[in-house]
Amino acid sequence: MRSVKIIVQYDGTDYHGWQIQLNLRTIQGEITDALSKIDERPVVVHGAGRTDAGVHAEGQVASFQLASNVGELELRDAINGHLDRDIRVLTAEFVEDSFHARLSARRKTYRYRIWNGAVAPPFLHRYVYHYRGSLDLAAMRKGASMLVGEHDFRGFTGAACDARVSVRNLERLDITRDGESILITASANGFLRYMVRTIAGSLIDVGRGHRPAEIIREALEQRRRDLAGTTAPASGLTLVQVDY
Amino acid sequence: MRSVKIIVQYDGTDYHGWQIQLNLRTIQGEITDALSKIDERPVVVHGAGRTDAGVHAEGQVASFQLASNVGELELRDAINGHLDRDIRVLTAEFVEDSFHARLSARRKTYRYRIWNGAVAPPFLHRYVYHYRGSLDLAAMRKGASMLVGEHDFRGFTGAACDARVSVRNLERLDITRDGESILITASANGFLRYMVRTIAGSLIDVGRGHRPAEIIREALEQRRRDLAGTTAPASGLTLVQVDY
Repeated sequence: MRSVKIIVQYDGTDYHGWQIQLNLRTIQGEITDALSKIDERPVVVHGAGRTDAGVHAEGQVASFQLASNVGELELRDAINGHLDRDIRVLTAEFVEDSFHARLSARRKTYRYRIWNGAVAPPFLHRYVYHYRGSLDLAAMRKGASMLVGEHDFRGFTGAACDARVSVRNLERLDITRDGESILITASANGFLRYMVRTIAGSLIDVGRGHRPAEIIREALEQRRRDLAGTTAPASGLTLVQVDY
Repeated sequence: MRSVKIIVQYDGTDYHGWQIQLNLRTIQGEITDALSKIDERPVVVHGAGRTDAGVHAEGQVASFQLASNVGELELRDAINGHLDRDIRVLTAEFVEDSFHARLSARRKTYRYRIWNGAVAPPFLHRYVYHYRGSLDLAAMRKGASMLVGEHDFRGFTGAACDARVSVRNLERLDITRDGESILITASANGFLRYMVRTIAGSLIDVGRGHRPAEIIREALEQRRRDLAGTTAPASGLTLVQVDY
């Protein structure tokens, strides 16, 4: 048996998220099926991040054990041959047995993309949240600065979050404009469920002027989800990179 | 009544082409329905180019007569409000009554995009034809040069083409590489049905080394469709721009 690391991209629009679920089409489920056909036995696939329904990935990482005697390129092509074209394995690499996509991960980077123009291009609508009103980026950055660092992010997750410890180190939370896109880029040693979308939604509420930036600090310090903002739609979120 | 020109983008993947058809979902059909609701009467919509099923547009142009008293931005937003997000009106503009999207068009530009890398990104697969083998661009350019100019393109259209005159002036046929994409850009005063896809398929056949570039000249001069190559898939084709 050899240990394998794959880097995976997907358009999550038509999937019920990463995590395998009975009778639902998920990314992990599709990859598990593909590998189990190739290896002619049940393969267990570990993913770095459990992206939710409708969330995309440019650099999801997964690991598994493989019995078949195939090369890296051959394996990549074989997996892709079993997948629909909205999921693609970019690379397959043989790694040390100690490697585990989730447990070995040191940092994850997500990007939330807001389309801030009057008309969202039809080629991008699956990958953005379209908000055409004006957004005060300075206020959003002020709110973002309150979140950077090691904090208990209980106020920025949903009731569905099952993490026992909700302290995370948010290393970076940048807000940039690129033409008609506004990009919120977040790097941390880990994220709670809905955390990026709750942060994005809260910062959008601040950017719209509906709430003062100071509410971000209150939601954080008081760990009160009701003080944080709305959860931004899944379509805008992409898992960009996992560092080891 | 006022005359209106709109510029339209669409992801054609889920549509049966531009032209309105009974009981089929088409771009012209969707726009006609939207305008007929806004104007509360049947509106007739003229498009610059009849893109086929699965073909996309970044700059399709359409024209129609409007009775409603609305402004340009209000009209654009109203039409978009009635459309799915894979069709978008970029601009609506009041024009002289003599303007007709098809009859006034002087030049159309199409782009055919080949994804020439090992793995086509899931975010782009709807907009490319994935061919991963090596392609000889010099041979493709040699073949392309034989097509530029005013010619009878009967050899590069399908039996379904109902044009009485098949002479067109192909002003430009460029082949460029952009990373893992190969772009075939064609501008002409008009195109026959399947013409760009037949040219693209023929040039790909030449680039693969399956056929010599000289076959392009023969297909053109002898007006023989059987000498030209395969029709490239619709997904790679986009109507980029219409000039007036």
